Amino acid sequence: MPKPRRSDCPINAAVELIGDAWSLIVLRDIMFGGRRRFRELLAGSEERIASNVLADRLKSLTEAGLLTRTADPTHKQKIRYGLTEEAIALVPVFATLGAWGARRLQASAPRAVHARMLAGGGPVFWAAFMDELRVTHLGAAPPSGDTPSDRLRAAYAAATPPTQG
Amino acid sequence: MPKPRRSDCPINAAVELIGDAWSLIVLRDIMFGGRRRFRELLAGSEERIASNVLADRLKSLTEAGLLTRTADPTHKQKIRYGLTEEAIALVPVFATLGAWGARRLQASAPRAVHARMLAGGGPVFWAAFMDELRVTHLGAAPPSGDTPSDRLRAAYAAATPPTQG
Repeated sequence: MPKPRRSDCPINAAVELIGDAWSLIVLRDIMFGGRRRFRELLAGSEERIASNVLADRLKSLTEAGLLTRTADPTHKQKIRYGLTEEAIALVPVFATLGAWGARRLQASAPRAVHARMLAGGGPVFWAAFMDELRVTHLGAAPPSGDTPSDRLRAAYAAATPPTQG
Repeated sequence: MPKPRRSDCPINAAVELIGDAWSLIVLRDIMFGGRRRFRELLAGSEERIASNVLADRLKSLTEAGLLTRTADPTHKQKIRYGLTEEAIALVPVFATLGAWGARRLQASAPRAVHARMLAGGGPVFWAAFMDELRVTHLGAAPPSGDTPSDRLRAAYAAATPPTQG
């Protein structure tokens, strides 16, 4: 049985679900990093999430209705995680939170450039990105033309110093 | 000495500062509730924050540069808390997070109406509300006309059922 909510405040409702040190990090890696499998999420974690913490968050986010768990089509014994509509609705939160977090980082950090582009795109860009996530995670029909994540990837690549040869 | 950051990601930078069960609740009560003193924050807490948790968060938010602590002008022995520019810059995060949290609540809950108004006002309304917070908390010159918080208060009052006589 779910715990009763602490109050009827929408900020509190959000904080009770994702107000911890790791939930948004896991959702970020699925949303922006395209990681869908446990091993990918664990190995790719820049913040070095511990495997028991990752397992716990995947479970609680699934129970809260933010993630789906399905059999991996390429590997039937394995599980693939996907975003629900409710998780996709977090795009504007990631945009504004990322812009705020970028204030604390060097302006030239590639991820700060990426965050400012997402924030600067505003509600129109967020809606297009959400449509694209609905294609990937919910099986919606694909849009035409350059997708927002093509544009985010290009901005990130442009801000990343070339590797030394 | 501050802990080293887990990564250079702006989302992570934000989560490390305010990704816990109480920091955003305390900032919300100062930002939207106009509570500036320890007793007001404790007594007014809908979520019943414990006094040691409140003391701890006020300390960590002050150390992180999100709150100021000054002597209360009406009561020299007491402390009054205020928002810094960095905390005021969280308005868009509160707007998008509140709109997301409101999805989990009854559409008619007064605070959900309030949250949707803040989100629906968009970046122009957020900027006006931030200017108003700068007047209250940073001593900036006041704007003219109806302030955003007058409008938020009116929306909240209109959505609150009248008390039985």
